[in-house]
Amino acid sequence: MTVKRFVVIGGDAAGMSAASLAKRRRPDLDIEAYEMGDFTSYAACGMPYYVGGEVLEIEDLVVVSPSEFREKRGIKVFVRHRAEKIHPDRKIVEVRHLETDQVKEVPYDELLIATGAEPIIPPGIDLDLPGVFPLRGLKDAADLRKYIQEHSPREGLVVGTGYIGMEMAEALTLAGVETTVLGRRPQVLPLFEEEIAETVAAELDRHGVKVVFRAEASRVEPGPDNRLKVTLTNGEVYTTDVVQLGTGVKPRSRLAEEAGCELGVKKAIKVDRGQQTSIPHIWAGGDCAEAYHRLLGKNTYVPLALTANRQGRIVGTNVVGGRAEFPGILGTTICKVFDLAVARTGLGLKEAQAEGHDAVKVTITGRSRAHYYPGSASIKTVLIIERGGKKLWGAQMVGQDGVAHRINTWAAALGAGLTLDQIYNLDLAYAPPFSPVWDPVLIASEVAMKKAR
Amino acid sequence: MTVKRFVVIGGDAAGMSAASLAKRRRPDLDIEAYEMGDFTSYAACGMPYYVGGEVLEIEDLVVVSPSEFREKRGIKVFVRHRAEKIHPDRKIVEVRHLETDQVKEVPYDELLIATGAEPIIPPGIDLDLPGVFPLRGLKDAADLRKYIQEHSPREGLVVGTGYIGMEMAEALTLAGVETTVLGRRPQVLPLFEEEIAETVAAELDRHGVKVVFRAEASRVEPGPDNRLKVTLTNGEVYTTDVVQLGTGVKPRSRLAEEAGCELGVKKAIKVDRGQQTSIPHIWAGGDCAEAYHRLLGKNTYVPLALTANRQGRIVGTNVVGGRAEFPGILGTTICKVFDLAVARTGLGLKEAQAEGHDAVKVTITGRSRAHYYPGSASIKTVLIIERGGKKLWGAQMVGQDGVAHRINTWAAALGAGLTLDQIYNLDLAYAPPFSPVWDPVLIASEVAMKKAR
Repeated sequence: MTVKRFVVIGGDAAGMSAASLAKRRRPDLDIEAYEMGDFTSYAACGMPYYVGGEVLEIEDLVVVSPSEFREKRGIKVFVRHRAEKIHPDRKIVEVRHLETDQVKEVPYDELLIATGAEPIIPPGIDLDLPGVFPLRGLKDAADLRKYIQEHSPREGLVVGTGYIGMEMAEALTLAGVETTVLGRRPQVLPLFEEEIAETVAAELDRHGVKVVFRAEASRVEPGPDNRLKVTLTNGEVYTTDVVQLGTGVKPRSRLAEEAGCELGVKKAIKVDRGQQTSIPHIWAGGDCAEAYHRLLGKNTYVPLALTANRQGRIVGTNVVGGRAEFPGILGTTICKVFDLAVARTGLGLKEAQAEGHDAVKVTITGRSRAHYYPGSASIKTVLIIERGGKKLWGAQMVGQDGVAHRINTWAAALGAGLTLDQIYNLDLAYAPPFSPVWDPVLIASEVAMKKAR
Repeated sequence: MTVKRFVVIGGDAAGMSAASLAKRRRPDLDIEAYEMGDFTSYAACGMPYYVGGEVLEIEDLVVVSPSEFREKRGIKVFVRHRAEKIHPDRKIVEVRHLETDQVKEVPYDELLIATGAEPIIPPGIDLDLPGVFPLRGLKDAADLRKYIQEHSPREGLVVGTGYIGMEMAEALTLAGVETTVLGRRPQVLPLFEEEIAETVAAELDRHGVKVVFRAEASRVEPGPDNRLKVTLTNGEVYTTDVVQLGTGVKPRSRLAEEAGCELGVKKAIKVDRGQQTSIPHIWAGGDCAEAYHRLLGKNTYVPLALTANRQGRIVGTNVVGGRAEFPGILGTTICKVFDLAVARTGLGLKEAQAEGHDAVKVTITGRSRAHYYPGSASIKTVLIIERGGKKLWGAQMVGQDGVAHRINTWAAALGAGLTLDQIYNLDLAYAPPFSPVWDPVLIASEVAMKKAR
């Protein structure tokens, strides 16, 4: 049977990547996409930079608008429509128009669930309280910026020390708010090694951001002088003007679960390498779904934009009869924290050890450019490697200069399975404005081989 | 027989890398290094930035001084000493002290020839003429900067459009000199594809540098008003105030040749992968020697700093009984031209075709960062690939932002033998300040696969 109707639930990265690719491959395909918010294909990762003021207009974050999808790509996009129930037996989705409240039944031949993730809101935090902001979508970013412009809050509290927490701490600071970050763990960026995290902590300090470790907000309520009173689980009380939640996200997988789709890691929708769920003709991709990890050889949950786009393309290929497989992630992430770039790829030490590897870590410091060239800065590299061996499991870097794309050299090396001596022997580019003769990647490889005893 | 005396001719990258490593491996080894100039281990690649004024002191370009080698590393370094003759039968080098003019016989067990390269000086150009400068070493850079400071030349002529020519055109411009570049070929940077070169030419133009193609200086002589008269081979005459020669280099291999060492590509000293010459106990490395090319599977002549340092380390390992092999180059180079970074790795189109590959090239334009993030700039990528296939032969990039270390992702991919689909599937880092979701490396890989018909 030829596929005639492809229905997509969720109008962002995975959903619209799938829709666009399927339409290019099969122009006669009837594609409908339902998005419960106001926007399609927007750059969620750009929101902190809108709040911080580097990005001037919220519209700049919209990559392709609903009308462009309709008019230029022939994809019928419906915003403010929420999918509420899937009937796999009848191959129908119930969709509610959030403005008229009308529910319609949408038939599909193939269905993609790309409902994304939702922020984890700690219990006791009332999102309706003025000055309390999650970061669920463009509207939240717009609301927060407007709130800052209108109320000029003096102090702010960011809950969470993951990369969203770091980016929002920077954004609030740039917007003129004295910022404190609360973290449950004893370090910022818990997904990074502590040697990397301590450089980030110093950078926050340098920019006047306070960090309170082992601290969890248990309650936010109206405080004196129109301020907010934040009570921590340990009983401490903070008074502040704005609270930003950056406490991580979880897959928005309930619709899929209720349809009978199996869930997997962290309640993300379970998928095979072709992004198919446990139910025929239902696919999943993006932040609501699992992602195959190449180094772990199994599915995991790491919601990131490139993964979502890539999984969308896999679905877009497969719903029209292709046979694409998600290549898998390597655990690559990067984050800007004020003047620093912080990046990782591969496994962290504990991750590698949890897999049964006899892994150790080595910290190496190098320079971003020739020592005499203006702008040359220190780069700290932490490598996670097999003890006494040449096997690389992961690399993390932090520095003010030249980190961003160097991490990709490590990612390429990991993706190719290069050993440390092979990496050390790579012919990397050298000119004084860009690197020392021995690039930090080469130096780290060499030193790690010697030290990994 | 145990090696007792290791003698090194040439006190820069290859020579001193070999000496330092050999000494670390065998602290009892007696090492003597003879350098005909005043400096050891200096950053030749930094000279344009001293002339241009970004580097303030010439001493900043000296990585390790002769006294540091003597006192901290136990290596007897003699500057202003020129090796004049090698007697392989007696294992002796004749060395002249350039101050006293005395010649001594220096016995060796193992000898490294690391005499570097020398600029190709077109016939008819008199280097003794005031205002005419080659770029042989730190002294030339110092002399040129001093000349500019003292004479404030209004106009300058750079002969040569290779990367030294480009760097010197930028340096003169930054030093306030109106600069014209003469090139024999019809494009700048002849080692790059024309699509890359045209972006560089536009950048030169934007900064007021004139470029005259298919032009060769045949004669430089004193002109009116204390200026210089430059006659081209086509009869045209230019009047200028300072002439900088950037006409490429050739291996300084005569000493080795006279000793009986076989020469190879472009009269560079022929070496095996262990950096041994055709004569036992004589080694060669750096800009006077050949370099093994991993993609060509044979020796070539590409004098660059990382190669010199690496070959030096190979020699330093092997003279004390190690068995190291030079891993080979991938043809990676990078050059700064004003605000641009221009980089390549692997083979150019003609190089690939000359090897018998059915190679084609594809040009792809991408962005360095998320389109909405400040500083996002265009990156042009040219890939050289097998027609209709997934095999990558080379990559070249040019842009104002984010080129420098992205080229290393290509270099790692080439070094690992990754195909275009494998590169497209790499999990590269994404955050809006550093890249689009689909990094230019990923986009280029994908587009090239489609277009390489």
